[in-house]
Amino acid sequence: MSAPKAVVLLSGGLDSTTTLAIAQQEAYEVYALSFRYVQRHSAELAAAQRVAEHFGVAQHVIADIDLRVFGGSALTSEIAVPKDRPLDQMGEGIPITYVPARNTIFLSFALAAAEVLGASDIFIGVNALDYSGYPDCRPEFIHAFEAMANLATKGGVEGTLRTKIHTPLISLSKAEIIRLGHELKVPFEITLSCYDPDASGRPCGECDSCILRARGFEQAGLPDPALPHASR
Amino acid sequence: MSAPKAVVLLSGGLDSTTTLAIAQQEAYEVYALSFRYVQRHSAELAAAQRVAEHFGVAQHVIADIDLRVFGGSALTSEIAVPKDRPLDQMGEGIPITYVPARNTIFLSFALAAAEVLGASDIFIGVNALDYSGYPDCRPEFIHAFEAMANLATKGGVEGTLRTKIHTPLISLSKAEIIRLGHELKVPFEITLSCYDPDASGRPCGECDSCILRARGFEQAGLPDPALPHASR
Repeated sequence: MSAPKAVVLLSGGLDSTTTLAIAQQEAYEVYALSFRYVQRHSAELAAAQRVAEHFGVAQHVIADIDLRVFGGSALTSEIAVPKDRPLDQMGEGIPITYVPARNTIFLSFALAAAEVLGASDIFIGVNALDYSGYPDCRPEFIHAFEAMANLATKGGVEGTLRTKIHTPLISLSKAEIIRLGHELKVPFEITLSCYDPDASGRPCGECDSCILRARGFEQAGLPDPALPHASR
Repeated sequence: MSAPKAVVLLSGGLDSTTTLAIAQQEAYEVYALSFRYVQRHSAELAAAQRVAEHFGVAQHVIADIDLRVFGGSALTSEIAVPKDRPLDQMGEGIPITYVPARNTIFLSFALAAAEVLGASDIFIGVNALDYSGYPDCRPEFIHAFEAMANLATKGGVEGTLRTKIHTPLISLSKAEIIRLGHELKVPFEITLSCYDPDASGRPCGECDSCILRARGFEQAGLPDPALPHASR
């Protein structure tokens, strides 16, 4: 019997890359799904492609979607990405880098891909701790999406292909994710976590995502192998 | 106080156009949302634009999305649209024109648009009777989407902007939809329901959607004003 297929949402960051490694470790045949939308950091896609290639996924699909029409967030509009925020301010409220309904949109495409592939399993690297301000990174949201998904599709309704959303990182700290990735030999040097990289794809070191990543490596007691490539 | 805003999913067909008329009748300020994806009938978009203009909506947004990567349905791939099927065969099972997770994807974008606009209300012209084979046209699906949506967004989580998915047509027959649209002075002549129109946007008259539309007008005891424009 061939390996079961899984759709893995892949941004090219540390979390989604570790999630992909977990799916592969669990013996799934991995179909990676990334999105091209008007965003500041298209360098993310280059990272996603490096990761997909490194892990030798069955297929890597990059879907074009148009989030511009909605605006309203630093990841899709011209609002400045906040820099050098203290850690205690990141956890409060919903961050400015929140993209409206982003995970809902991404999971909807993953659901369509899974149905076409005949896959029951979708992996997403959401994390409820470090991104506590994002409503669509919480377990309640994931459970509700899964319930909806099983009413939305042929397979769910007919009972032949029940959708399961896997969130292996959801309750881990960034340091725990890094330790887990380290055990799974994730090549962190090819991942990119920054909200605002420079033109050559180097991390800024100052946005929330860079700060959380740096703190995570520090707490994990490991060096960040991506850093020697940065300009600073 | 200004009118509340509503996002209305608009394909340019009879159902979504009637739904838009209902939203306007209920005194919402209408933001129409259509999708451009690789499909056989881009003539649909021309119909959507005519409809948006006719009703003088506040804004009509056409979002580009890439459903090609998934394939698997006559609306997005090269499988032939079934023609001249008997009515009793349409209701059975899930039709070949089913697009995987389509309404999930469409509603996800509508949710993002609603959040950006500060709108609580989303209208979708799904119908559980004539399209009984589509899992994502049923009330159970809509309720599950609404529950998920209110866990996915800032406003839902903070309780400041609860999402309501309106499905005014969900339990109506096609004839009832046509009678309702007639009362609301819906210009049916500018709508397009066909799965397989010709190059100039004329309906084929033979696909499931054309057959259901013709039967609906017949049962409503009204002529279809779109027909004189057709070649047959």
